[in-house]
Amino acid sequence: MVEGKQLTRIGLAGLAVMGQNLALNIAEKGFPISVYNRTTSKVDETVERAKKEGDLPLFGFRDPESFVNSIQKPRVIIMLVKAGAPVDETIKTLSAYMEKGDCIIDGGNEWYENTERREKAMAELGLLYLGMGVSGGEEGARHGPSLMPGGSFEAYKYIEDILLKVAAQVPDSGPCVTYVSKGGSGNFVKMIHNGIEYGDMQLIAEAYDVLKSVGKLTNEELQNVFTEWNKGELLSFLIEITADIFGIKDDKGDGYLVDKVLDKTGMKGTGKWTVQQAADLSVAAPTIASSLDARFLSGLKEERVEAAKVFKSGGFGVQSNQAVDKQKLIDDVRQALYASKICSYAQGMNLIRAKSIEKGWDLKLGELARIWKGGCIIRAVFLDRIKKAYDRNADLANLLVDPEFAKEIVDRQSAWRRVVCLAINSGISTPGMSSSLAYFDSYRRERLPANLVQAQRDYFGAHTYERIDMEGSFHTEWFKIAKQSKI
Amino acid sequence: MVEGKQLTRIGLAGLAVMGQNLALNIAEKGFPISVYNRTTSKVDETVERAKKEGDLPLFGFRDPESFVNSIQKPRVIIMLVKAGAPVDETIKTLSAYMEKGDCIIDGGNEWYENTERREKAMAELGLLYLGMGVSGGEEGARHGPSLMPGGSFEAYKYIEDILLKVAAQVPDSGPCVTYVSKGGSGNFVKMIHNGIEYGDMQLIAEAYDVLKSVGKLTNEELQNVFTEWNKGELLSFLIEITADIFGIKDDKGDGYLVDKVLDKTGMKGTGKWTVQQAADLSVAAPTIASSLDARFLSGLKEERVEAAKVFKSGGFGVQSNQAVDKQKLIDDVRQALYASKICSYAQGMNLIRAKSIEKGWDLKLGELARIWKGGCIIRAVFLDRIKKAYDRNADLANLLVDPEFAKEIVDRQSAWRRVVCLAINSGISTPGMSSSLAYFDSYRRERLPANLVQAQRDYFGAHTYERIDMEGSFHTEWFKIAKQSKI
Repeated sequence: MVEGKQLTRIGLAGLAVMGQNLALNIAEKGFPISVYNRTTSKVDETVERAKKEGDLPLFGFRDPESFVNSIQKPRVIIMLVKAGAPVDETIKTLSAYMEKGDCIIDGGNEWYENTERREKAMAELGLLYLGMGVSGGEEGARHGPSLMPGGSFEAYKYIEDILLKVAAQVPDSGPCVTYVSKGGSGNFVKMIHNGIEYGDMQLIAEAYDVLKSVGKLTNEELQNVFTEWNKGELLSFLIEITADIFGIKDDKGDGYLVDKVLDKTGMKGTGKWTVQQAADLSVAAPTIASSLDARFLSGLKEERVEAAKVFKSGGFGVQSNQAVDKQKLIDDVRQALYASKICSYAQGMNLIRAKSIEKGWDLKLGELARIWKGGCIIRAVFLDRIKKAYDRNADLANLLVDPEFAKEIVDRQSAWRRVVCLAINSGISTPGMSSSLAYFDSYRRERLPANLVQAQRDYFGAHTYERIDMEGSFHTEWFKIAKQSKI
Repeated sequence: MVEGKQLTRIGLAGLAVMGQNLALNIAEKGFPISVYNRTTSKVDETVERAKKEGDLPLFGFRDPESFVNSIQKPRVIIMLVKAGAPVDETIKTLSAYMEKGDCIIDGGNEWYENTERREKAMAELGLLYLGMGVSGGEEGARHGPSLMPGGSFEAYKYIEDILLKVAAQVPDSGPCVTYVSKGGSGNFVKMIHNGIEYGDMQLIAEAYDVLKSVGKLTNEELQNVFTEWNKGELLSFLIEITADIFGIKDDKGDGYLVDKVLDKTGMKGTGKWTVQQAADLSVAAPTIASSLDARFLSGLKEERVEAAKVFKSGGFGVQSNQAVDKQKLIDDVRQALYASKICSYAQGMNLIRAKSIEKGWDLKLGELARIWKGGCIIRAVFLDRIKKAYDRNADLANLLVDPEFAKEIVDRQSAWRRVVCLAINSGISTPGMSSSLAYFDSYRRERLPANLVQAQRDYFGAHTYERIDMEGSFHTEWFKIAKQSKI
């Protein structure tokens, strides 16, 4: 094929680790693939890997024209380059050689509106476009990611056979891929996936913090706890790797590596976008928001060190001398983590639904839960429960009121409250767990104190209010009445 | 002047209640003012009011040309119309008759970037532009608002004498107006003011909820409590009107009006924007975010009614049978409210600083606290403490570590923790207070569990991590090491 005789089935441009791995995965599934990268050493590297990893049908190209021409028509090219300007540049480079009916797929974490803009621009050239969320990190890309393609259905159909084989395979529920919907829906769903991932990681970190700081568990004990947890309701990739992490010794000194890692968390754009979209869509997503805030606060390491000094001398640090029943604490924390997780996913799913309504995407929440069951970072048995909840009732207003989840929460709520209060009284913050609990307690509350807020708004801004006992919109001259009664 | 002989000092376009009141305020301070509104009945209404409220020098115009021509040069016209498209339309209408050196001021709650766009467009016409936050509601506009003008300094200087007299006057600290900075800084600062206002209102609502639902206080008792609170550290406009609200009887039935107000809170754009800006600026603002979420959740009244049924039958409603020492509870709640308020303002001020750095606005936080001391919705003695904190140290990293505030928090933190735990154990959500507490406990924590999050990110995404004991950026093959150790 390098000689231009036989054409490959598909192309992939952008050969950083994710791109290399996805290309090797596609080749391994039996689809001959052309690869291209602007920096040509990456092309050689990928070709080398294809040879080493089983003589896979992967063909490297050093210029865009021969790369494009090596692919059978209608041509499909997956890009795995940085979101933003690099995507636009790659499109420009490739589309110069592409023909009507060909298709470009963006596999990066792109802002969904960029995808919609590009889809339109491509359509003017007669080209098709997909924005495809790819989750699973490097390992997932190589051996089976969760794929969230959105955009041109026609383009999806061209490569459905490839995606079905390349995606993670989950027994009883099939390959972790589905056509999401039109426009930027694939990117949007991937963005929410990442927001949920932020929430999961924060909740796990809080569980760790309570167990370590209050329960005084050692890393060995923590590893055992997370290993145990990974056999039950919490079984998931993130719990599994957390158990692994606690077992890894520091190769540069004594003790465990996790204790040497600086408590400063980086981030990319998707968590931020999720929180901003929540505000735009009028959907409360406090668990996800608090995990973003936790990352921001983690970044203020130097300020925190100073603040700790200020408040230690003021008589308050972390209180850790309470007598704690370790086994009971472990059990409570597990329940608190699980109940909080339900809240976090409820928020994520409701964000997707709100956007789906706004954009007319007609997204199927159960189907999205299904394709997250394998391959991706948030994969968990838990997602099967979510899928089943939406199977029972596709119009479920909130996961919290699904009968099964409701029962699980009722069973766990005492432990949940105990853990949050224990943390509060120990001076440890559990922003994810406590905001989840506040979300639950607000959502299941028939009457909130919002009547006072609305009365205040009507008092100073004449914003009007509704009444509980009659229809209509009302305004009261609160100030005048209050003034009269004071005379 | 109506005859075109003598010119007025300033013009105002947009005569809804806010516009009418601000125009009357300006006229009352001795500045002859021209007013204009597209719907002319509003012009008549305003002229009528000017007569009735003391024969004020206010002159109505029914067409934009004569309106503009009635003002002395360089002409200054304040617009008080709806943010967005109506502002653009009004500018278009008025600028057609304006001349080089004239100035338009937008007094609405406009998105700061719109102001910056318009300022540029106006500059091309040789016109000056200001975006001026106006806070204080209808009463404030009429008798003395807090004014936050940003944009052209030259334009500010034209009308400084007017603004200094029209703004609220606070003994010992002067008129509640200052030139904020260039560009959209005035709108931005007003937006954050509103975000803080959201936080204040939510915290008060939570205090009310705990006192009413757990403490079983009657409206009479609540009125007394808030009246008392308004004599101490919490003295503020919002506490004052809250006390008023509890005293107002329902004129359509038995009992108190506040109990008949539907618990569904409306909102405009500024709270949402604040939360979105916080995410953009990487600044944690959980108190403000939770107050926005509380409004979202309040809007789901029907869903909440259904959810309450689900969880009541599951054995859990609001627990209110605990024995509570009322006086102690009232005192605890006051302290929790105050400590939470410090956190909320710390977030708001840090948002302003982060934006100031990003935009090169060089904002003076102490001066902004000063102009909020009177006129606006969040006016409070508390703001004087904030001003003083920044007077002591203009570079204060966070209000929490100011020695005075730190001491106040240390004194109140036990009560704060008691209230949040009591609410949690009563099944009542206090999202504002608990997220404030989590913010405090995170900020003053030398070591957060973010090390685990970063280890996870490096595990599945090779995002690298830093170490506590040596410089550099590290990556570990966690998966491979863990796999080996399992063999």
